[in-house]
Amino acid sequence: MSVLAADANGLDTAEIKKLQADLVDWDVVNENGMDILEKMFKFDTYLACLDFARSVGRMAEEFDHHPRLVVEWGRVSVAWWTHAVSGLHTNDFIMAARTDRLG
Amino acid sequence: MSVLAADANGLDTAEIKKLQADLVDWDVVNENGMDILEKMFKFDTYLACLDFARSVGRMAEEFDHHPRLVVEWGRVSVAWWTHAVSGLHTNDFIMAARTDRLG
Repeated sequence: MSVLAADANGLDTAEIKKLQADLVDWDVVNENGMDILEKMFKFDTYLACLDFARSVGRMAEEFDHHPRLVVEWGRVSVAWWTHAVSGLHTNDFIMAARTDRLG
Repeated sequence: MSVLAADANGLDTAEIKKLQADLVDWDVVNENGMDILEKMFKFDTYLACLDFARSVGRMAEEFDHHPRLVVEWGRVSVAWWTHAVSGLHTNDFIMAARTDRLG
């Protein structure tokens, strides 16, 4: 199942800024020349971190769009980007908003 | 519950090399001036990655020693180090061996 936009065009800087403004605390980070959308989620326990990572991962699987999840003591970093455009696509912002609903 | 060694001394290079030789495919990586013990585990599906990360995380919680888990499409990176010694402790190698049993 996928309800994500199917076009494979990357976003330009103005489009990224506009979409980013609709999100809370998501940073656009340049990593090895590629823009990614990243946010840190904090939790009181390690098990809460694991549960959140699993929830995000299962949601990702449902939409067949997979983030990088970094689980550490007390926090989980979630990073979205789109391999096919070597950067950010509208879908990444949709997935970021969905991620917030799980946090 | 903890069956890990309780002393808080870091390991020197010779001790690290000796312990590393008992493990398969674990790399000692210097990250921001600190040695960490890292291995990449590959899987065919994203759900298998999530399940492995959860298994390692639950084992970590049991021993109260928590790794960094990086979950990406097809792979999970596990990194052990000991905050109290700003580097590697015997416990990290014990936990690496335990991690291998879950992979």
